[in-house]
Amino acid sequence: MSENVLPAPSLLAQARLLAAPTVGASVVRGLERVTGRPVEQGFSGTPPEEPFVCVGAALPDALRGGPLVWFHSVNAGTDTLLSSGPWPSGALLTRTVGRMGERIAQYVLAWVLAGCQSVPEFAAQHARAEWRRIPSELASGQTALIYGTGRIGSAVAGLLRGCGIRTVGVGRGAGATPVGFDRVVGADDDAESLASARWVVSTLPLTPATAGFFGADRFAGMGGATFINVGRGATVDMRALEAGLRSGAVGGAVLDVLPEEPAVPGDRCWQLPRTVITSHSAGITADEDVVTDFAACWQALAAGRVPGTAVDVRRGY
Amino acid sequence: MSENVLPAPSLLAQARLLAAPTVGASVVRGLERVTGRPVEQGFSGTPPEEPFVCVGAALPDALRGGPLVWFHSVNAGTDTLLSSGPWPSGALLTRTVGRMGERIAQYVLAWVLAGCQSVPEFAAQHARAEWRRIPSELASGQTALIYGTGRIGSAVAGLLRGCGIRTVGVGRGAGATPVGFDRVVGADDDAESLASARWVVSTLPLTPATAGFFGADRFAGMGGATFINVGRGATVDMRALEAGLRSGAVGGAVLDVLPEEPAVPGDRCWQLPRTVITSHSAGITADEDVVTDFAACWQALAAGRVPGTAVDVRRGY
Repeated sequence: MSENVLPAPSLLAQARLLAAPTVGASVVRGLERVTGRPVEQGFSGTPPEEPFVCVGAALPDALRGGPLVWFHSVNAGTDTLLSSGPWPSGALLTRTVGRMGERIAQYVLAWVLAGCQSVPEFAAQHARAEWRRIPSELASGQTALIYGTGRIGSAVAGLLRGCGIRTVGVGRGAGATPVGFDRVVGADDDAESLASARWVVSTLPLTPATAGFFGADRFAGMGGATFINVGRGATVDMRALEAGLRSGAVGGAVLDVLPEEPAVPGDRCWQLPRTVITSHSAGITADEDVVTDFAACWQALAAGRVPGTAVDVRRGY
Repeated sequence: MSENVLPAPSLLAQARLLAAPTVGASVVRGLERVTGRPVEQGFSGTPPEEPFVCVGAALPDALRGGPLVWFHSVNAGTDTLLSSGPWPSGALLTRTVGRMGERIAQYVLAWVLAGCQSVPEFAAQHARAEWRRIPSELASGQTALIYGTGRIGSAVAGLLRGCGIRTVGVGRGAGATPVGFDRVVGADDDAESLASARWVVSTLPLTPATAGFFGADRFAGMGGATFINVGRGATVDMRALEAGLRSGAVGGAVLDVLPEEPAVPGDRCWQLPRTVITSHSAGITADEDVVTDFAACWQALAAGRVPGTAVDVRRGY
């Protein structure tokens, strides 16, 4: 993010503190504890005239046009927030990452090992009172191709590597290999890795560059991998995924996110072969996460530093 | 094991090499590669008169009474082998551990994370075309109590710890804390840990000391833990487990092993609440594992060392 949007500590010290109506009471109390000041919830019809800070999931229309200095998102993904209208000029945007990397990494490892150990199959077999040995796969020595080499991708890679899985990241290749990865390739250079990976994991955010990123070419080029999406649903062309599953190029799919959520009972997605949809449950944010990450931003700003969870509003993450 | 049963390298060099009829052709070829000598399969009605080495799952009756110098078990568990009759005096027993520690550890972690992430529930929900968020548990900070602090227990502990789980071992307390464990308690001193653990994992072998080890006291003393048994089925009093599950002291059970296997369709075990039975699939041994571990024993004996997988036939493991 560019440094010129950092609110000065003196500005922050006098700004009004607002919480969007959807923010829970325990978060509001936490924000008051962190700032030592009252937090207002519920707004009148006109934007404040004084500089203000807001915490919420979306920027309420009633606040647009006022002198917003800083918005702290209670979510990690800010694509919905940024696509709802032009971002107020000069306003800092930070987000709640919480323990999302850790949570999502455990979700991914759970489904990887569930695949290796046939967890759903054993549960179904048990329900039929059937004793039958099912061979397992040893995860060690398998390869996972992980799209996104930021915090979440690194957390996923680190946990998979603990089970002996080779981790190849797809991201900007420049600089040192990020933590958790054995190596990193560019997005234009992923064909060979796609063909040989046992697992393809996406942690990609939704930006103009990633919409429909997983299309016919990538799915047709997989060599039987299981595709796990913990990023954003609209990065996937669902028809292309379906074709890949039906041809066998895609061995299976675990989708936490969909282009359109929630999926209604008649949606075509429920009929995809060898697929499980988990209802956007992987990266939940707890109330305490919002307060913890807000507090870290508050302290960084008071010290004149860029918060670690600041969002580049042009890039979208 | 006592050192006096080690066959001298000179004895080994002239011993006949036999494989039990159930040993696969690829294992026989591997044994011949390792020893540089022919391996005989299929026996006449009378035991050999010359010293002999045997590889198999069970000691064939036709070989009892002959001068057996070394038996290499293709399995890790040797309780069935040792309970089938008195062990031939002076005969070395070794076993195949293979990658069993790694396999069993991945099995345990798979079911731990499947519990945290509601894998079976999501699979069932998907089959009903139902979009519903299910809260997950973060494994980090939970406690696992692991019975058995040998190779397999250590492998389980190490993998669980990679997900931030505190690992308490139950074993002989003397000496340094084994790899993977945060601490170790004695079997008579496990009550407090049982009450507070989220996961109770057994890797115990079956010996006279462990038969029925998990009885009414231990199950009633759990504070809602999920019980995972990758050891031996007869270490568990199934009626006591059922009572624990019905009272809620035991939150759930994942049983890879049972006192009587295989379970027939009408068996009471299929009706246990919140339980999955996985048909003795956790610790499979691959053919290559048998040959690799036999080769390590062969080399150790040629050098006059005790093989790392030697079994103390009095203790039973």
